Amino acid sequence: MSDLNQDAIQQDRMWMQKAIALAKLGQYSTRPNPNVGCVIVKDGQLVGEGFHPKAGQAHAEVFALQAAGEKAQGATAYVTLEPCAHYGRTPPCAKALVEAGIAKVVIACADPNPLVAGKGVQILKDAGVVVAVGICELEAKQLNKGFLKAMATDMPYVRLKVASSLDGRTAMASGESKWITGAEAREDVQHWRAISGAVITGINTVLADDCQLNVRQLPDVDITTIVQPKRVVLDRQGRLPLNAKILEVPETVMVMGPFRPELAGLGVVQLEVQSLSDLLRTLKDFHIYDVLIEAGATLATAFLQEQLVDEMISYVAPTFLGQSAQTMFNAKFNTMAEQLRFKLADVTQMGNDLRLSLIPLQETV
Amino acid sequence: MSDLNQDAIQQDRMWMQKAIALAKLGQYSTRPNPNVGCVIVKDGQLVGEGFHPKAGQAHAEVFALQAAGEKAQGATAYVTLEPCAHYGRTPPCAKALVEAGIAKVVIACADPNPLVAGKGVQILKDAGVVVAVGICELEAKQLNKGFLKAMATDMPYVRLKVASSLDGRTAMASGESKWITGAEAREDVQHWRAISGAVITGINTVLADDCQLNVRQLPDVDITTIVQPKRVVLDRQGRLPLNAKILEVPETVMVMGPFRPELAGLGVVQLEVQSLSDLLRTLKDFHIYDVLIEAGATLATAFLQEQLVDEMISYVAPTFLGQSAQTMFNAKFNTMAEQLRFKLADVTQMGNDLRLSLIPLQETV
Repeated sequence: MSDLNQDAIQQDRMWMQKAIALAKLGQYSTRPNPNVGCVIVKDGQLVGEGFHPKAGQAHAEVFALQAAGEKAQGATAYVTLEPCAHYGRTPPCAKALVEAGIAKVVIACADPNPLVAGKGVQILKDAGVVVAVGICELEAKQLNKGFLKAMATDMPYVRLKVASSLDGRTAMASGESKWITGAEAREDVQHWRAISGAVITGINTVLADDCQLNVRQLPDVDITTIVQPKRVVLDRQGRLPLNAKILEVPETVMVMGPFRPELAGLGVVQLEVQSLSDLLRTLKDFHIYDVLIEAGATLATAFLQEQLVDEMISYVAPTFLGQSAQTMFNAKFNTMAEQLRFKLADVTQMGNDLRLSLIPLQETV
Repeated sequence: MSDLNQDAIQQDRMWMQKAIALAKLGQYSTRPNPNVGCVIVKDGQLVGEGFHPKAGQAHAEVFALQAAGEKAQGATAYVTLEPCAHYGRTPPCAKALVEAGIAKVVIACADPNPLVAGKGVQILKDAGVVVAVGICELEAKQLNKGFLKAMATDMPYVRLKVASSLDGRTAMASGESKWITGAEAREDVQHWRAISGAVITGINTVLADDCQLNVRQLPDVDITTIVQPKRVVLDRQGRLPLNAKILEVPETVMVMGPFRPELAGLGVVQLEVQSLSDLLRTLKDFHIYDVLIEAGATLATAFLQEQLVDEMISYVAPTFLGQSAQTMFNAKFNTMAEQLRFKLADVTQMGNDLRLSLIPLQETV
């Protein structure tokens, strides 16, 4: 490859990185829509930029075109996701790019929905616009793991959060667990809640902790601008007390369990599903594409053993709680062949704790 | 501080880094002597370098002075440890530096032995040599953790190696444990054995694995040049079989347990000590300054609970072995206040596993 081409690719990558950084500005507020960023470049100069801030508001391309104005004529647009081709709450962006006179569109990810994938590109090509797809694709995909999985399958992207001691314990036998991990790790959990459409927990966790599972603080973010996740409680015996703190905002609570008229009266959505996989599929139908499980060992083990977890976010505190403390994983295996292995995708030190990103290796289950 | 001084300190640090790198070349071969490196610099140019390769051979300063020859006149010597002041197997290095006409000596660590500390510096100063102590001290101390602790106290530096799954398990209930961690982590253990004067294990580990606990391979190192660690077996009931593999080289085996004439006949050193702390003190008297414990949960727990561990080297494999598998830490605690906490000093990814360096926080035990 010539040096000239290498330089051009370097430029493309640099501008796409900028578009990805813009897209991230919407990470807590666009749900269920994806995060998208766009920059418009003419003669090597940035002439417009935008990101999608919130469902119902304009798409990233529209903000960038508005900022560019006349300068969009003959310019190159970098977009993190294939421009839309359909009339929704806004007119199709592919059309808007054509009408503004954009000469070239560089796209990181194609549209993941097989029914519409390529239609945005087709509109552009039909109008004589040069199109390149795949620049910084892997990084752009990280922006929208849930959206991309949900569009391509019938399931949301499922993250399981666990926090344990080095000897694999989550609490003393008495239930005492404050605190195993330090403040930095506990605050980090807020990020994962905030990028999730729903947080799933079990009734035992609600009864033990009277937890709310909402987002209370994020560094440098006005918490009123974010879309709070739904809180989903698995409660097969209908034990959720009406004075539970989680019911203080009942319209964002969903319960999987027997129908209870008193919950319906509060506006709680009640899900009549039997299995965990049906629960996840149903949440996807509610446009919940990123799910965070924060539950005790029994439920965590069940989700893992049913191979429903895409990624485990594991906080490890360097401490020993001893062998009468509660275990983090409840299954019993007799041989090494039965073990549940993970790929170590990332490790980050958080204060005196570790955060691991672990991908289940399903073939060995 | 003036820029000139800052530049001089930068230069000093750079040359001391070089001396530290030289010292490391002896890391597997100088025991029980410390690792020491020396560089001699004149007019900003390196004119001689050396390191201590092996007990009984010349000290680092001697090699460096030989290489420098006449150029040592008026030069600066950088040494990682205070030059010796006593006549041992070699004449005192402080004197040799003076006689060679060295004008300035920069030292990273003072001599740790309170009885002799400062004597090398005094010889230099009395001869009119300029002396600076403390450049890169922390880094130089890492070279000789065991030597420095043993000279300053009556105990060796004790590392405890553990390897566990994410749920804190070391083997299945059946004893099956091959392999929890991957090849990279297992090979890394060889380094820790090779810098240790002794590897301690329990009789149950020997009976279960028929292990040798010697150093079999190190990257880019001729294994015949290293000092193999002693292998110390805790065997209170005298159960070590005479055909155990560990006895293939009996003269490097030590046993803590009842006296057995058949072991004495093989040349095995038998230690008549009752407690783990007495064992460690006795090993120090044998000039064993770095100890690595590779044992099962019972012995590991005992060393930790008796606060005898300086550093835990913990390999964590991202896998769940389930709650009937064997635990890594056998103590039982009722409250969080009893937990055994560690400071996370280092985390390194090794293949698909993690290696943690953990320092026990004794005050919370």
